[in-house]
Amino acid sequence: MKLDVVFTPAEADAAKLAGRTVVVIDVLRATSTIVEALANGARAVIPVDTVERAVRTASEIGRGDTLLCGERGSKLIEGFHLGNSPLEFTAEHVAGKTLVMTTTNGTMALLAAGAARRCVLGAFLNATAVTAALAEEDDAVLLCAGREGRFALEDAVCAGWIGRRMAQRGRTRATDSARAAMRLASRLGRPPLRFLRRTAGGAQLRRLGLGRDVEFCGAIDRHTSVPELRDRRAVL
Amino acid sequence: MKLDVVFTPAEADAAKLAGRTVVVIDVLRATSTIVEALANGARAVIPVDTVERAVRTASEIGRGDTLLCGERGSKLIEGFHLGNSPLEFTAEHVAGKTLVMTTTNGTMALLAAGAARRCVLGAFLNATAVTAALAEEDDAVLLCAGREGRFALEDAVCAGWIGRRMAQRGRTRATDSARAAMRLASRLGRPPLRFLRRTAGGAQLRRLGLGRDVEFCGAIDRHTSVPELRDRRAVL
Repeated sequence: MKLDVVFTPAEADAAKLAGRTVVVIDVLRATSTIVEALANGARAVIPVDTVERAVRTASEIGRGDTLLCGERGSKLIEGFHLGNSPLEFTAEHVAGKTLVMTTTNGTMALLAAGAARRCVLGAFLNATAVTAALAEEDDAVLLCAGREGRFALEDAVCAGWIGRRMAQRGRTRATDSARAAMRLASRLGRPPLRFLRRTAGGAQLRRLGLGRDVEFCGAIDRHTSVPELRDRRAVL
Repeated sequence: MKLDVVFTPAEADAAKLAGRTVVVIDVLRATSTIVEALANGARAVIPVDTVERAVRTASEIGRGDTLLCGERGSKLIEGFHLGNSPLEFTAEHVAGKTLVMTTTNGTMALLAAGAARRCVLGAFLNATAVTAALAEEDDAVLLCAGREGRFALEDAVCAGWIGRRMAQRGRTRATDSARAAMRLASRLGRPPLRFLRRTAGGAQLRRLGLGRDVEFCGAIDRHTSVPELRDRRAVL
């Protein structure tokens, strides 16, 4: 299969995602959190770009079934029900709910993947399951959310980890960036993923007292479920 | 020192280059060719974005002293004196001349670095000299030209090679992307740089019968000179 990796949404236009299969990866923390939320019984997660649109979307759906979620600067948004910590998205909080979510990097990447034929959500939490979900594809692009428009090491290593698994399944034609990601994963992608703490994103979360989130997002294959984007909603 | 790597010009805005020291790297082939041309006695190289602007700029300077150089799709532009192969830029052709150059990726990156306080040009051909030129800086950004808006492995490895040399000179605070580049260089950056042939850019040049260019651009430290951009001209 043909395998490509895009390190930042800024590269997405040049990568020509339209009509292709795209895996969006935001390890710290949006796709990790969405994987966790759906595994814990959330009905759907709707990614939106702004706080204002989140509020409007939630009120259109009807607030009883809906939770507002997300972060700015890694912190809970005022008036929102949940932030972007996967530890908050327990069955108790999210089962049966529709979540409207806006985050700095991850939801932007999900929106950048809007032209894809198929869009799945990946993280270390469901990495092997993502590989299986792509088994029938002959072309896939792993789109890293990055961090504030920049390369994020944790997303690149997760993409490389998934790429290596796919290469083990059969012959893979990898682009330059896919080769780079796989090489990065060959050392850094071994559990336990200690490198996560030292990434820019990991270090910022630890400074904010969210070190447990970093550990949580480094658990490989906690789930076997792979969310997909359908009608702009992430669902199982 | 603080060390950052930007893998594509698309990331340059988010990397905030204004007022900083930037090293532009386009191994295949623009910065390799400019390093070679200036080492062979060219007076200056003026990077411009379009073929039309190249023609206009050359005619403003006066054509006797001026050569039009560049490529589109790795090929010579009709009516231009030289293409973008470093092998063409011999002393016989370029000594004493001002070169006006437009290439697909490299000159775009040089223009993206326009806001830098200091802009130097790097390649494998002058990699150690670049390291020395940055010795007094406490902050540097290595800006990779990439290829058609995408990550290019040869530029990333060259940036990582320079980064590793700088880290050997003293304590370095590396961003996520700088760490990734240095890790890529730790294996791939060993001479002879055989990986160059298998990059997307290297493979394309070989298909066009330009395999000698790829070998040439993989010669580490052929020159000790470091071009700098001054008044939008690359000079020694």
